[in-house]
Amino acid sequence: MGIDPGVANTGFGVVRVAGGRIGALDAGVIEAPPGEPAERRLALIHAGLRELIGWHQPVAVALEDVYFGKNVRSALAVGEARGVALLAAAECGVACFGYTPQAVKMSVCGTGGADKRQVQRMVGQLLALPRPPRSDHAADALAVAICHASHARPSRALAPAGLGALRPEASAG
Amino acid sequence: MGIDPGVANTGFGVVRVAGGRIGALDAGVIEAPPGEPAERRLALIHAGLRELIGWHQPVAVALEDVYFGKNVRSALAVGEARGVALLAAAECGVACFGYTPQAVKMSVCGTGGADKRQVQRMVGQLLALPRPPRSDHAADALAVAICHASHARPSRALAPAGLGALRPEASAG
Repeated sequence: MGIDPGVANTGFGVVRVAGGRIGALDAGVIEAPPGEPAERRLALIHAGLRELIGWHQPVAVALEDVYFGKNVRSALAVGEARGVALLAAAECGVACFGYTPQAVKMSVCGTGGADKRQVQRMVGQLLALPRPPRSDHAADALAVAICHASHARPSRALAPAGLGALRPEASAG
Repeated sequence: MGIDPGVANTGFGVVRVAGGRIGALDAGVIEAPPGEPAERRLALIHAGLRELIGWHQPVAVALEDVYFGKNVRSALAVGEARGVALLAAAECGVACFGYTPQAVKMSVCGTGGADKRQVQRMVGQLLALPRPPRSDHAADALAVAICHASHARPSRALAPAGLGALRPEASAG
């Protein structure tokens, strides 16, 4: 399961790998209403992810490590959303893995310099979706899930535990 | 209750205001072992804060808004800890308030340009502690709690709800 944490929109994407083939099980966006105070938005993100992780029971959660292209203020806000995402995974006993944006683009588009549209298109193509995901956030979450599933090297082993075998069958679609 | 979130050390400080006097109820640091993966460290911080908030039942949680003096990488990490701190407050129904470092220093030391030692000393003095808090993080958490208690203006109303009256008596010491 890939997660693209954000204060307003948190993308998620669940993929299944079986017999060398990869498919999408679920993808979407958790929206946190802008009028709400920060802590309630974070509670919504956390509750939504807890439910999704509980439902799909992924073997791993993958996130992009975003260290640049952001200013300190937005990094702090993204960090808050990321914190509750990591917590949701930990509470469900699921290990987390971080990948650089370059590693994600490389595994999806074959180049670390791909742009957003290219990632969206390739995510749709690799997962044989009828059309590319409409939401950037859902596409980015699927992309980092594909990256993890294709055994790209985590830039930072958020969890020291090994990846383990990808499950051949999903618990629920 | 003031919180100074950090990945390794999260400071907390609980103050009580009654009859125009302010006193410390509790202060300390939640340590997250560096060997653990990020998500488990965040789970420890979250569980620790949940317990403290449940125990002290503060009327409000106050945090410093740190937007500078940090690089993007450290802002992301602080944001993660801050996210689970805000979540812990939200889960306990406690509103959160953010203050600039200047506002905190101003309300504790009378100047926005005070240094760490000065803050530590003044926190000890204002709360009539036998000696200043040994930990920077505990001192910073007490400082932002004092700032909130003295009705300094939040730089960002994390919660739109009003502050409400400070309780004359604490539920537990």
